[in-house]
Amino acid sequence: MRGTVLYGPRDVRFEEREIPKIIKPTDAIIRTSATCVCGSDLWPYRGINPIPQPTPMGHEYCGIVEEVGSAVRSVKPGQFVIGSFFASDNTCPNCQIGYQSSCRQRELVGTAQAPVLRVPLADGTLVATPDVPSDEMVPSLLTLSDVMGTGWFAADAANVNPGATVAVIGDGAVGLLGVLSAKQMGAKRIIAMSRHESRQRLAQEFGATDIVPERGEEGVARIQELTNGIGADSVLECVGTQESMMQAISSTRKGGYVSYVGVPHGVLLDGQELFFAHVHLHGGPAPVRRYLPKLIELVWNSKINPGKVFDLTLPLDQVAEGYRAMDERRAIKTLLYPKAA
Amino acid sequence: MRGTVLYGPRDVRFEEREIPKIIKPTDAIIRTSATCVCGSDLWPYRGINPIPQPTPMGHEYCGIVEEVGSAVRSVKPGQFVIGSFFASDNTCPNCQIGYQSSCRQRELVGTAQAPVLRVPLADGTLVATPDVPSDEMVPSLLTLSDVMGTGWFAADAANVNPGATVAVIGDGAVGLLGVLSAKQMGAKRIIAMSRHESRQRLAQEFGATDIVPERGEEGVARIQELTNGIGADSVLECVGTQESMMQAISSTRKGGYVSYVGVPHGVLLDGQELFFAHVHLHGGPAPVRRYLPKLIELVWNSKINPGKVFDLTLPLDQVAEGYRAMDERRAIKTLLYPKAA
Repeated sequence: MRGTVLYGPRDVRFEEREIPKIIKPTDAIIRTSATCVCGSDLWPYRGINPIPQPTPMGHEYCGIVEEVGSAVRSVKPGQFVIGSFFASDNTCPNCQIGYQSSCRQRELVGTAQAPVLRVPLADGTLVATPDVPSDEMVPSLLTLSDVMGTGWFAADAANVNPGATVAVIGDGAVGLLGVLSAKQMGAKRIIAMSRHESRQRLAQEFGATDIVPERGEEGVARIQELTNGIGADSVLECVGTQESMMQAISSTRKGGYVSYVGVPHGVLLDGQELFFAHVHLHGGPAPVRRYLPKLIELVWNSKINPGKVFDLTLPLDQVAEGYRAMDERRAIKTLLYPKAA
Repeated sequence: MRGTVLYGPRDVRFEEREIPKIIKPTDAIIRTSATCVCGSDLWPYRGINPIPQPTPMGHEYCGIVEEVGSAVRSVKPGQFVIGSFFASDNTCPNCQIGYQSSCRQRELVGTAQAPVLRVPLADGTLVATPDVPSDEMVPSLLTLSDVMGTGWFAADAANVNPGATVAVIGDGAVGLLGVLSAKQMGAKRIIAMSRHESRQRLAQEFGATDIVPERGEEGVARIQELTNGIGADSVLECVGTQESMMQAISSTRKGGYVSYVGVPHGVLLDGQELFFAHVHLHGGPAPVRRYLPKLIELVWNSKINPGKVFDLTLPLDQVAEGYRAMDERRAIKTLLYPKAA
């Protein structure tokens, strides 16, 4: 088969690789129905994370189970399944408390931009849908593998409650799905920080009540203005830079909640500044597995349609163009379909 | 009258000052029944916080109202009252949500190591006890002005719940009262980090079930060992240094809670480290005013006796020795009584 491999900055190749096989009895082999490019894939793509050797790419996936190892009990061939970017046993103390992305046995599922995929710890990782979904539903189900689960965690970690005033920093796919999640959780007012027209429109479609194009201190001033100088109850930081983190903290009311779900790059928090900000802070790699059953239900019953974040669809063999379009911000998020075998 | 003034590192003087008077109609004048030295007073005492000019000291107080301004409605002369180190209006949005120490009108009450004291925003700041207390109860009531309220906030911000496993970093008065607070909130296991015998004893009296004398990485390893490698549910950081903060974060289970209540000095948190730690973080200046009614009730009904943290009692005119004893760690906390007029 052919799969996606990153060779160096902006050097994505779709090349011949071995077909994955069962290695451990807890593995499953999935035929990928759809995969996509993640905002976090751009860190190594841009050379900000080093790439010491050619690296297979992709950690968002859904598809049909082809084969399972001898120890697998909860999924079987023919089922349509979704799993998180971190495989988890779902039984260790960290999993039991809902932090499956810190599972003691966690393994990154990192070869998903390919037509066939090996998923470790299949019983703990994969969740089957009630039936094989329609083609139309696949993009939304695919988002549950990471980006939608991460947006949901952002809203959950920021303690979004019915009636809350929420601000979302970052208009990437995670931020936009943070807006959708906050809306689902009953937020009354959702302020989306965005200066891109197509993203603003999608934010509004997902439930944003206000759009703020300003950034940094000006962005903070606008949020303070919109909240009578109080600040937002919940702020979702969906970027991962020093500027966005400080913007999030300064936009939050005293006693309010800041979540951060993008891997921080070069972020340093001054203890004393944080102390007097008086906010709650929570984040980390989203425990997507915790939310999968609930989010599958919401998609299955057409309560949410997170697949709308895909504004570029390509056959998988054009994956390099998919990266390019996101890097140049021509696309919010690229959906990739393997060709029928 | 004579009051306490810090002139420079380790230069505390008890010297003649003007008797405070009502300045604004919202002020009250208190005759101090007792005051004390705070761990945070040691930062400027040790020259770590600069002292640009002779600075009156003291922010923990309780006593009898002598006089109130024309606008004061909720307290009256003759009542015994307690207030926070931050005066607050208790009506602004930050106060209303329980963060009175971030009141929009907040003023530091910073001249309390004196026999007479002016308290601004008296209606929002002062809470009267049901009656004038016995002399025996005064030390415990005094702690509610800061140290006990801060220990309580530490436990509250770390989300201590019935049955929880709690670790407390710091065996100063705040840490010890964090132990007491965690016990009150129903913690099942309370691990106190302490290498001083008298403090260990008091921690145990307040409810600590385990004592860990190790610090830094060794301390973390001990807590991990005591919790089967899971980490504590709630960790109270009651020191304010880089080492103690990192120790707290590393001692917490995934998805657990870290509070920090000592003003951080030289603390820098790495965003990526925090991200993968997967903890909740909350802290800041304790909103003591929020807890005053509840804590007065607990002391008044002899449910708690936080005054036990005072292991040195001096007349106020020996305040310099009170600082010295705490600086040299001969005393946990110094209680000071003004001489009868």
